[in-house]
Amino acid sequence: MKLKKSPLAPASFPDMADIAGVRFAVAEAGVKYQGRTDLMLAQFSPSTTVAGVFTKSKTASAPVLKCQQYLSGGLARALVVNSGNSNAFTGRRGEESVDHILSAVAAAVGCKVDEVFSASTGVIGEPLPHDLICSAMPGLQAELGSASWQDAARAIMTTDTYPKGATRSARIGDVEVTINGFVKGSGMIAPDMATMLGYVFTDAAIPADVLQALLTPSSDASFNCITVDSDTSTSDTVMLFATGAAGNAQPKGVDDPALADFKRALDEVTLDLAHQVVRDGEGATKFIAITVTGAEDDGAAKRIGLSIANSPLVKTAIAGEDANWGRIVMAVGKAGEAADRDKMGMRIGGVQLAQDGMRVEGYDEAPVAQHMKGQKIDIEVEVGINDGTATVWTCDLTHGYIEINADYRS
Amino acid sequence: MKLKKSPLAPASFPDMADIAGVRFAVAEAGVKYQGRTDLMLAQFSPSTTVAGVFTKSKTASAPVLKCQQYLSGGLARALVVNSGNSNAFTGRRGEESVDHILSAVAAAVGCKVDEVFSASTGVIGEPLPHDLICSAMPGLQAELGSASWQDAARAIMTTDTYPKGATRSARIGDVEVTINGFVKGSGMIAPDMATMLGYVFTDAAIPADVLQALLTPSSDASFNCITVDSDTSTSDTVMLFATGAAGNAQPKGVDDPALADFKRALDEVTLDLAHQVVRDGEGATKFIAITVTGAEDDGAAKRIGLSIANSPLVKTAIAGEDANWGRIVMAVGKAGEAADRDKMGMRIGGVQLAQDGMRVEGYDEAPVAQHMKGQKIDIEVEVGINDGTATVWTCDLTHGYIEINADYRS
Repeated sequence: MKLKKSPLAPASFPDMADIAGVRFAVAEAGVKYQGRTDLMLAQFSPSTTVAGVFTKSKTASAPVLKCQQYLSGGLARALVVNSGNSNAFTGRRGEESVDHILSAVAAAVGCKVDEVFSASTGVIGEPLPHDLICSAMPGLQAELGSASWQDAARAIMTTDTYPKGATRSARIGDVEVTINGFVKGSGMIAPDMATMLGYVFTDAAIPADVLQALLTPSSDASFNCITVDSDTSTSDTVMLFATGAAGNAQPKGVDDPALADFKRALDEVTLDLAHQVVRDGEGATKFIAITVTGAEDDGAAKRIGLSIANSPLVKTAIAGEDANWGRIVMAVGKAGEAADRDKMGMRIGGVQLAQDGMRVEGYDEAPVAQHMKGQKIDIEVEVGINDGTATVWTCDLTHGYIEINADYRS
Repeated sequence: MKLKKSPLAPASFPDMADIAGVRFAVAEAGVKYQGRTDLMLAQFSPSTTVAGVFTKSKTASAPVLKCQQYLSGGLARALVVNSGNSNAFTGRRGEESVDHILSAVAAAVGCKVDEVFSASTGVIGEPLPHDLICSAMPGLQAELGSASWQDAARAIMTTDTYPKGATRSARIGDVEVTINGFVKGSGMIAPDMATMLGYVFTDAAIPADVLQALLTPSSDASFNCITVDSDTSTSDTVMLFATGAAGNAQPKGVDDPALADFKRALDEVTLDLAHQVVRDGEGATKFIAITVTGAEDDGAAKRIGLSIANSPLVKTAIAGEDANWGRIVMAVGKAGEAADRDKMGMRIGGVQLAQDGMRVEGYDEAPVAQHMKGQKIDIEVEVGINDGTATVWTCDLTHGYIEINADYRS
């Protein structure tokens, strides 16, 4: 099935500078797709540090379990990702496939097996033809440096309709560093996290434990605040690699003031990438931001926001450009968090529709109807309990989602 | 929008005997719909007992809150239900509407206000034009006994494509009693409970506290085991009325052995009605039964089952007649309950596809593909932890759901 590019896609893939110590190569290994790249190898310079966050699925895939195991070493020399087959629910054979692939990569780039990280994305439950991947490795190694950021981002796509990249620069002390990232994902997207693979790279010098302490909250505020269809993948992975080539002074800890600007830039990259995933949500025609205020605490606000964001009735109403705020009230109610029915309020597109638990008398529906016709929908809900707030992002639920998902495997 | 009758609808509404002490009338009050009945009044003989279970929504509607308050009296003389407007999120004005309606009913049938139960179903957040309902009351009272069970079931429908009724007889001691019920609901259906209104009536003599102790578990095993779209209404209500006209000896408690056959019949009525709701799921083309075994306990099994039943990716795959069991594994994983990846197994249509965490070597896909083309889909999942089991029911997710819900309010 050939998918049309999402109407919510950014105009183009960003210009992204090289990062010293990172080189890419891509190949057409033919794992499942024909006529496109489906294999990406990244090589890192020695002493590159690494952090990662992974799916909380109880049926996590073999590559995820292996990444989690190797992360404790804190060092990475290579990353290999294939698309087309997720090597999930493949039992012992799946673990063997990972071992074969890691060994082939380690041999090709000349490093230890536990410095190689891998991911697989695509169909669940089919044996992974790892021979196709292993035999491509010498050729990939020979071509390291030939692939661009966009090439790398494209090779790991599944139902994505466009490659997704983001870049920012930051200062650590008086040294300028770069943060580049790319991500794939468009369906099976839900907090913790998504059929989402996200990779972020920097030339900053940051110890692995500090890198982890930066990545976890940054992911919580970005990738864990988006949902397309409430479904959580067995393969979700976000990793952050730091080559150290920029030569900044090593930060003393995550609270080192020298990291403030880096944190800002990292959070911008992860949020940009997370938004791009939503903008490529399967069948999406609207990008929706939902802000909840007045909840018991920030966690409660996020749960209420996600209850709204995951409601099929809310998402179909928005697809129909209908400001059906009654369904939003329903979704607040089902979240199971405290809400004062008689203090609730709601704005859509900045217009106050409801206040103190009732529709605002004689509110002007025209600007709201106009807002609903746009591509960016803003919903604000006050639940009248305390001061917890959160913003989450999602997309609408359309015929396009059904089309894509009713015949994906065939 | 005119909806086509669900392809999963039963052949016809069942023949249902009269129940002494229950009389119905219906009217076209014009609350929202034109050219169809939208108001139902039921009158009960004195000393009719009542039990009820209600939505757990934190934004429950005014009628729900009032029903819960009056339930403590244990007695019911009347039930009034309108369709077209749910009187939910209507603040103080909504409460006033309920008071006006209950007073009008009490005056018409000659009883106390706190013996009148009401419900409203339809659009959320619009003021209920209760005058239309109150002014219809004298006429309805004059016509009590003129409406059939099917007439009553039709008057409370919203997006339902057919009226839903069920009937069973049972013996209490040597007295034969009848249990009749009807239900409305087709979207916003999820445990605890649904945009679902269910009413069950019997001529058995059963004290209110025993009636409640019978209804709660019966609802848990039926209405709380179904899901159409994971959305929970602000108005969900199931009530059970017992007129006592059959003259059986009053049971001593819920564990009185004389109630065994009544329990069986009640459970059959509630399950029959619950299945009919799923069969009328908005856009449904497949009726899906999901049985989970090997879970930590029965509650965990139900949560895993509902995670599968609510997964848009599972539901769209089934709509596409694709036995995409990888998505089922994903849904098990995201449920958050214990599952042993390497002991999991799965059957579809009775055929073992996966065992010990892997696809069964060389399994024959033909009978599974044939099963997926049918209207009844059976999925069994073993998660390999303990002996918890549960069965839940849902339907597929199709273009029809999007069509119905993208322009319901307009």
